[in-house]
Amino acid sequence: MTGTIDARLTELGITLPDAPMPAANYVPYVVSGDMVFISGQLPIRGGEMLTGKVGSEVSADDAQEAARLCGMALIAQLRAACGGDLDKVASVVKLTGFVNGAPDFTEHPKVVNGCSDLMVEVFGDKGRHARAAVGSGSLPFNVQVEIEGIFRLA
Amino acid sequence: MTGTIDARLTELGITLPDAPMPAANYVPYVVSGDMVFISGQLPIRGGEMLTGKVGSEVSADDAQEAARLCGMALIAQLRAACGGDLDKVASVVKLTGFVNGAPDFTEHPKVVNGCSDLMVEVFGDKGRHARAAVGSGSLPFNVQVEIEGIFRLA
Amino acid sequence: MTGTIDARLTELGITLPDAPMPAANYVPYVVSGDMVFISGQLPIRGGEMLTGKVGSEVSADDAQEAARLCGMALIAQLRAACGGDLDKVASVVKLTGFVNGAPDFTEHPKVVNGCSDLMVEVFGDKGRHARAAVGSGSLPFNVQVEIEGIFRLA
Repeated sequence: MTGTIDARLTELGITLPDAPMPAANYVPYVVSGDMVFISGQLPIRGGEMLTGKVGSEVSADDAQEAARLCGMALIAQLRAACGGDLDKVASVVKLTGFVNGAPDFTEHPKVVNGCSDLMVEVFGDKGRHARAAVGSGSLPFNVQVEIEGIFRLA
Repeated sequence: MTGTIDARLTELGITLPDAPMPAANYVPYVVSGDMVFISGQLPIRGGEMLTGKVGSEVSADDAQEAARLCGMALIAQLRAACGGDLDKVASVVKLTGFVNGAPDFTEHPKVVNGCSDLMVEVFGDKGRHARAAVGSGSLPFNVQVEIEGIFRLA
Repeated sequence: MTGTIDARLTELGITLPDAPMPAANYVPYVVSGDMVFISGQLPIRGGEMLTGKVGSEVSADDAQEAARLCGMALIAQLRAACGGDLDKVASVVKLTGFVNGAPDFTEHPKVVNGCSDLMVEVFGDKGRHARAAVGSGSLPFNVQVEIEGIFRLA
């Protein structure tokens, strides 16, 4: 039996990545009551992190795709937090997108839309979330964007 | 009938701005249980965003006023989340202020006080909140400051 | 009578700092239901803040030690939030570490591990948390790192 959200993923042609375990003394997610707090996720494609300063070395369009990959990783972690059943997700509550912008970069909302749009594609109206899109002077491994999330379970 | 907080706003001479709707796939706020998560708000005055690097192009005092405008926008969104009745607010829980500081800027607390002070002016002791004040290497539209908030309803 | 966590602190040779009160219109922590939101904590040793850009003026190793000091301050605030009894802590839910990195700095996770490791040393498995480690273009007083936290009480 396939869940509604799994069916939507298939329909969208989305294959979630594995939910990677951090190597350090933190975990990919913590469930606290009905809230799930997911650690900041990085953009990985084919095993490679997408790197570069956005606005100087990388375009906002490319970084938008990177933000979508962060979203895929968030959903993969969320699936693990749900014991595999994404139909247990009641809502996407809050996303915070940290963009590795050049000092004069201004299109953070456009970049983080890559993740926001994915949430609504996958979860429909439950995917509409509060969010902040901000710049970071630097990011781990020089990735283009890092996105963390808070979700609510039914 | 006017609520207590509405009366306080009048007394303070504060007219809240309209609560703007984002154009993208996210929403200005999400209510989750008794918690309200409000998206990062930007400083807007007379329809214009207040922009510039703080510490080089803009003074900490000017940015403090911008932070107050972010606070007005947060309260406007909060009022919408309360169905118009700000007396339903139990407490301001947490603010995160992202200041568009020049690399050597150090007065982030002073800037974000513009928002923190407003919360206590409007909500009294219920307005005392946890907070983080940090720098951003860049911000959307080059605004001086962006502030997000978590609130609790009674 | 000494609590389990107090005994662990003694065993680890850790003396918590005083929990400083902010001078402004915000507070060090807010308890909301069973959640505790703690304000961003700065690295202080012997009354002095640890300052400098990480990656250019300060090494990642030194900043890791600064992150540990932020963690000590978080636990000190948490103890105050628990009325002095750290055994009431059910879990460390989420940490956000803002590193004052030079524009080309990439080792944010290593820095924030200084705080993450402390949480697991002190709280054991309850100390394993979700986290984001990001860069800031600037930080208050030019500190090396600022860390905020969300905790859950039993």
